[in-house]
Amino acid sequence: MTGLTTPAELAAQLRVDAVRCSAAAESGHPTSAMSAADLMAVLLAERLTYDFGDPGNPLNDHLIFSKGHASPLLYAMYKAAGAITDAELLTFRRRGSRLEGHPTPRLPWVDVATGSLGQGLPVGVGVALAGRLERLPYQVWVLCGDGELAEGSIWEAAEHAGHEGLANLTAIVDVNRLGQRGPTRHGWDTGAYARRFGAFGWHAIEIDGHDLGQIGAAFGEALSTPRPVVILARTRKGEGVREVADREGVHGKPLAEPERAVEELGGRRAAEVTPRRRPRPDGRPHRVPAHGTPELHVFDKDEATRTAFGRTLAALGAARADVVVLDGEVADSTKTAEFAAACPERFFECYIAEQQLVAAAMGLQVRGWKPFAATFAAFLTRAHDFIRMAAVSGCDLRLAGSHAGVSIGEDGPSQMGLEDLAMMRAVHGSTVLYPCDANQAAALTAEMADLGGVSYLRTTRAATPVIYGPGERFPVGGSRVLRRSPEDRVTILAAGITVHEALAAADALAADGLMAAVLDLYSVKPVDTAALRAAAAITDALVTVEDHRPEGGLGDAVLDALADLGPRVVKLAVRNLPGSASPAEQLADAGIDRHAIEAAVRALL
Amino acid sequence: MTGLTTPAELAAQLRVDAVRCSAAAESGHPTSAMSAADLMAVLLAERLTYDFGDPGNPLNDHLIFSKGHASPLLYAMYKAAGAITDAELLTFRRRGSRLEGHPTPRLPWVDVATGSLGQGLPVGVGVALAGRLERLPYQVWVLCGDGELAEGSIWEAAEHAGHEGLANLTAIVDVNRLGQRGPTRHGWDTGAYARRFGAFGWHAIEIDGHDLGQIGAAFGEALSTPRPVVILARTRKGEGVREVADREGVHGKPLAEPERAVEELGGRRAAEVTPRRRPRPDGRPHRVPAHGTPELHVFDKDEATRTAFGRTLAALGAARADVVVLDGEVADSTKTAEFAAACPERFFECYIAEQQLVAAAMGLQVRGWKPFAATFAAFLTRAHDFIRMAAVSGCDLRLAGSHAGVSIGEDGPSQMGLEDLAMMRAVHGSTVLYPCDANQAAALTAEMADLGGVSYLRTTRAATPVIYGPGERFPVGGSRVLRRSPEDRVTILAAGITVHEALAAADALAADGLMAAVLDLYSVKPVDTAALRAAAAITDALVTVEDHRPEGGLGDAVLDALADLGPRVVKLAVRNLPGSASPAEQLADAGIDRHAIEAAVRALL
Repeated sequence: MTGLTTPAELAAQLRVDAVRCSAAAESGHPTSAMSAADLMAVLLAERLTYDFGDPGNPLNDHLIFSKGHASPLLYAMYKAAGAITDAELLTFRRRGSRLEGHPTPRLPWVDVATGSLGQGLPVGVGVALAGRLERLPYQVWVLCGDGELAEGSIWEAAEHAGHEGLANLTAIVDVNRLGQRGPTRHGWDTGAYARRFGAFGWHAIEIDGHDLGQIGAAFGEALSTPRPVVILARTRKGEGVREVADREGVHGKPLAEPERAVEELGGRRAAEVTPRRRPRPDGRPHRVPAHGTPELHVFDKDEATRTAFGRTLAALGAARADVVVLDGEVADSTKTAEFAAACPERFFECYIAEQQLVAAAMGLQVRGWKPFAATFAAFLTRAHDFIRMAAVSGCDLRLAGSHAGVSIGEDGPSQMGLEDLAMMRAVHGSTVLYPCDANQAAALTAEMADLGGVSYLRTTRAATPVIYGPGERFPVGGSRVLRRSPEDRVTILAAGITVHEALAAADALAADGLMAAVLDLYSVKPVDTAALRAAAAITDALVTVEDHRPEGGLGDAVLDALADLGPRVVKLAVRNLPGSASPAEQLADAGIDRHAIEAAVRALL
Repeated sequence: MTGLTTPAELAAQLRVDAVRCSAAAESGHPTSAMSAADLMAVLLAERLTYDFGDPGNPLNDHLIFSKGHASPLLYAMYKAAGAITDAELLTFRRRGSRLEGHPTPRLPWVDVATGSLGQGLPVGVGVALAGRLERLPYQVWVLCGDGELAEGSIWEAAEHAGHEGLANLTAIVDVNRLGQRGPTRHGWDTGAYARRFGAFGWHAIEIDGHDLGQIGAAFGEALSTPRPVVILARTRKGEGVREVADREGVHGKPLAEPERAVEELGGRRAAEVTPRRRPRPDGRPHRVPAHGTPELHVFDKDEATRTAFGRTLAALGAARADVVVLDGEVADSTKTAEFAAACPERFFECYIAEQQLVAAAMGLQVRGWKPFAATFAAFLTRAHDFIRMAAVSGCDLRLAGSHAGVSIGEDGPSQMGLEDLAMMRAVHGSTVLYPCDANQAAALTAEMADLGGVSYLRTTRAATPVIYGPGERFPVGGSRVLRRSPEDRVTILAAGITVHEALAAADALAADGLMAAVLDLYSVKPVDTAALRAAAAITDALVTVEDHRPEGGLGDAVLDALADLGPRVVKLAVRNLPGSASPAEQLADAGIDRHAIEAAVRALL
């Protein structure tokens, strides 16, 4: 710390500013900020290594507020560090302000959006993994609430970090004993948390979170301990102001008498601290060598799209230094195993912990890595809240879900991704891709590497026929016409495995003189609106067919794109509850196989 | 155990039958069954108290295979207990068979579908909570894999059970050290798991899982320990057959030479065991007294639908003995606090652990309770996979998500449920309800109590005007016409908070002589197709407006219902990434407020 301010003075200022900005906003969580003010004052003054003028500096530490509702404290820190003005501080929660109710990366010092509890620590693990991969000396500090330790995602993160021995990760838990509704499960029993973190391989330090000396010592101990450290700090919610200190029923509310509170806290202050910076020569991000353009494998016989995905990942890994791959202990099924074998340093086994799988990927992309995270499509639903928040964070995140649909066959409904298109399409700004053959899967996988936002590739378990040549391009937002004739009376719209069913149906119909166009809508979002409008102009009836629930998938994408035109659309989708059966039986039972398509077309004509 | 079979003989038979049925199916997970065969043989022969002829008997123990892929073992147990024939055993994984790849409640002895790992133990906690509530003597036995202990949901369950001190719950972990792809994180280090469960308040017993004496002793210790017990059993995957025992690369595959394996296991057996039963006089389910028909509160001024939901829960609780309520530590926001105050015995605080929230509800409904589980709509995404599996399980599960949409205002996107309609509509057989006023919310909440399947009530943070009288009925699948005239040129379709925006827009348009009908589509799924078709027949243009992402919500429900008619539809939905702003500003910024609706209608005409 430079300047004349002591940590105690700084802590008082942080509390004052948390009270002030919440009062100005007439909402917010000042009491959740006040409990952690001493912790953050010492961190900012003494330990955080950060150049606020250069937030992209690879040598900067990372500070993540897992308890995002303590945003008034974070913003007060930014003010104290000179990163924002007092005037901007008072825009808190107003329309257009960067200082949102919960932090988002609209602020350049925020890595990821928080506010859905239990996410900051899992993402912090990913940032720490990035630091190790890059051989950079930064420290990842995560401020957690005690209430959020009930989230299973916290223990997935604890397991991951503990097993990896991430010494560059410190969790600071603000144990203020009060959740939103009332007392937490363990109150001030920091020992309960210490036992849990200890069992997961962490070093736990229990302190009085309002004792500046204990706080400083704990940070020092954290930095010198060769494994992840959790600092369990007993605090009082609303500390510093009698009106609210350790009081129930005041969560998420500005103080009733903010001016009196500011006075009680010793009045307004305008101290600035300049956190220390790491000198540039301390290190540069390490990157593995790579040779440039990926060489995509050429598939010339039946192959599963998941296999093409895995093979392409390996090619990307060889060509590009920035690609990393994560898997949820099913790499032999998703086929990321091929990347793992080729680039073991950049493969992250996350075991059966899908929230951590996605969170680690989010953390890795904070540092510019291009992560692909894969598991069964069905099990990505476990990470739904993280995926949602990744979109709020503006993360560049590539997800791949294998074993989509009923076509997986005998394993039954627990393993079938039947809701994934709905989940992924509703994610803000997402891209949803669904290849039908191996060459298309390879091309789309390669294309994903440079896609922004949250993107998703849906792959199929079974081998499917090759219908596209190598080297063909499949731009995001495009589609392919696979059958078209001047006599077309219907257009069949399909993607993935149903493309092959649609082609078979079209051929059978053509044999009877009934001509149907077939479009491959491999880009489910954005969907190829122009091609759909053209199709609707040619044939007045459309049939959509998808290995997915009828809600939120391919059929709905088509209806949405044509909502203002209003063509007649028949949607074939999985409406039954599947059991076990062979892939062909499943497609038939769900009414999405070639015969069902054929029947639907005949019924229309 | 009756009959002449020893546990060792029984274990051999279970292995043989697991090998045989997987061979017949040409798929399945025999090696994952073989590792746990000794554990299950001793359980079935000596400890499980179960009347297979009367699966609904409240005195039955509960056996949940959290490692659902070990289904060949479960079905072999059913055969040994005489519940299924050998012929049926060999239908494993065939189309139409009850013996699916992963267990589902199509079998009367299965409580919930498993196969998505990390779910059986969380649900088991719910079943154990039900037993305590009912004052029944049954024991809940959950067979877990070691790999699934990486799931955060397991630790949410461990925390819940440990804190509640559930002595009627025993987890048996088959530590066979091999996951699907390769070794688990901790291999055979049962101590690593013992420390973790111990830290969460469980009693842990480490044993050799192939030593029948140790197994029996552990079960005895479990039954006499007054808190939850985990038995950590070191086992070998594929135990009993050299070809596969403790071998990598054989997960999820039938044995290459099943006949030789059966021989190695000592050949086919046909032993039957009859598990002991609890005598009927041991207990009846305890039910609290209740007085019959719920008296719904009459709302006559602006009130939030969440408040009406909470008040109605309290009324239901007073009237009916079977209603239970669970919350994720936001009862003051979801308003379940009113039920908690009225019926504390039947209120379950699940803290910030949404997977466990839903899982506990699933477990409670196994025993016939009518659970309502509530949290913010946004945070229900955490439980997506459980909700999906609840549908596969045929669970009767009532979910409520508060703080839907951008209209929550300043808290920002992390707290906004904007994807929940898409998620819930895609759930098989679900019901999705979205009230716009307090009396409607009360009526729909009361109606949910007797709904089958997974149902969802979406509530709003802000107070909304009362537009319906008390006592009005709102059947599932219905809708309400709020404005209609012979001069209507457009129909506006809304639900929840946008109903009020639609009414204001219609009034403003009417003042200009532009007549628009307004429909309240409170039943988002099933949607009122008849009313929609009637509306489409009267006005050739429709405007949908929803406080939700454009994908998978109300607009898509309308498009789907009218797909074969093809009206022109304009969809207003949340396409931006919101920040902080007031509720009115948020609705305006998202383009779903009265002015946006008015502009959309004018543009159409």
